[in-house]
Amino acid sequence: MEIITSTKNQWVKTVKTLYKRKGRKESGCFILEGWHLLEEALKAGAKIEQIFVLESQQERLQEVEGIPVYCVTESVLKAMSSAEKPQGVLAIAKQWEYPELTLEGAWVFLDRVQDPGNVGTIIRTADAAGYQGVILGEGCADLYNDKVLRSMQGSQYHIPVYEKSLTEIIPQFKAQGGKVYGTKLDKNAQDYREVHPQGDYAILMGNEGKGVAKELLDQTNQNVFIPMRGQAESLNVAIATAILLFAWQ
Amino acid sequence: MEIITSTKNQWVKTVKTLYKRKGRKESGCFILEGWHLLEEALKAGAKIEQIFVLESQQERLQEVEGIPVYCVTESVLKAMSSAEKPQGVLAIAKQWEYPELTLEGAWVFLDRVQDPGNVGTIIRTADAAGYQGVILGEGCADLYNDKVLRSMQGSQYHIPVYEKSLTEIIPQFKAQGGKVYGTKLDKNAQDYREVHPQGDYAILMGNEGKGVAKELLDQTNQNVFIPMRGQAESLNVAIATAILLFAWQ
Repeated sequence: MEIITSTKNQWVKTVKTLYKRKGRKESGCFILEGWHLLEEALKAGAKIEQIFVLESQQERLQEVEGIPVYCVTESVLKAMSSAEKPQGVLAIAKQWEYPELTLEGAWVFLDRVQDPGNVGTIIRTADAAGYQGVILGEGCADLYNDKVLRSMQGSQYHIPVYEKSLTEIIPQFKAQGGKVYGTKLDKNAQDYREVHPQGDYAILMGNEGKGVAKELLDQTNQNVFIPMRGQAESLNVAIATAILLFAWQ
Repeated sequence: MEIITSTKNQWVKTVKTLYKRKGRKESGCFILEGWHLLEEALKAGAKIEQIFVLESQQERLQEVEGIPVYCVTESVLKAMSSAEKPQGVLAIAKQWEYPELTLEGAWVFLDRVQDPGNVGTIIRTADAAGYQGVILGEGCADLYNDKVLRSMQGSQYHIPVYEKSLTEIIPQFKAQGGKVYGTKLDKNAQDYREVHPQGDYAILMGNEGKGVAKELLDQTNQNVFIPMRGQAESLNVAIATAILLFAWQ
């Protein structure tokens, strides 16, 4: 097995390009870091292109027949890693492919949700609540961002996630009979507990600071809010999404 | 006004000690970083001991009469800061004091919730849902951790948060007539939608990987679970807390 000992090795450079959205788009690949994410990906049948592992942890690698494995030194792994404490293994994986989008069932639409932890947590929650899938509108954190991957906890293998323009998707969904519920920090919006969506519908959640864009809220069937009894000014967007998903499930 | 230009200045060292739990415990102080947290603290009447500000942003400081203000260079602020991109201001604040604990109303008890973002988000959510307060059991992230502070968004000024041993608090709460609902990833536990707490009660949430400790679950009045329709194995602990808090509100 090849051993990489120099941080100037070409693989170190290749891995680094994949921490950027541009590098991921161009190659169609992304980085999986740590044993948990790698094992989950292997279990789900994801296409792994290369694995880089510390020699001391090599024995933990199982069922990787046909995948090129490189041993790396600690300094090389550190150079490759985005984590403060690299976990011993890192892999280059092919971006997964979902079946063509069919807008049926219950969906989550995200408008410019920027924090990767929020995007990943929302996908995990949508999976747990049994929703059909998630659409990331323009300006959302990238699905293959390492923090999104960590927060999703593998839910990307259970439900599909598409990157689409919401200005196109919303009218399309409505034309097919779906209802879109926007969320708005506004007491004139409808209390979410009084709304009981039936059939195909989507919950539209917005940016952490700015909420859903006005031009999207104008297109919805109804806008709802979550009444707050306490003094907090707002809820975290992943929290607000979870409350709606489980209440409307 | 004094200008600090050397990263070897004593204040740089003092600030750094306050990023550690030990330094915070010993001094009774903590670090507030960025304009948003500082302004929130001033608005809430928190005791600010010192403020360090970039000369270029000094004009933004308002209502700080009686508080020593130091101008710092960018390199000094960077040395003081825990953020990747320091926001121009940083302060040393006194830890706040809450009235003596009285266990009445609806509470959130946390057992070893380690992620600071989760602890902060749960406190913010408990505030929004109108709960009485939060108890951090042993092994939880520290209330004055910078990530906890960022996630709370000021909710620590709205509801009290106590660090207490849950092995003592649970029997005490029950002896006063309160009911404790533990959470358990177990389909033999009660579906949370079938439970409708009345009077004084507490929701007991546990560690991200391990859940609530068995010895605590054995002491509860009832253990509940959140049924999941999808394939996700679990929910993030802050998400699960939010679902219960808003359903039982």
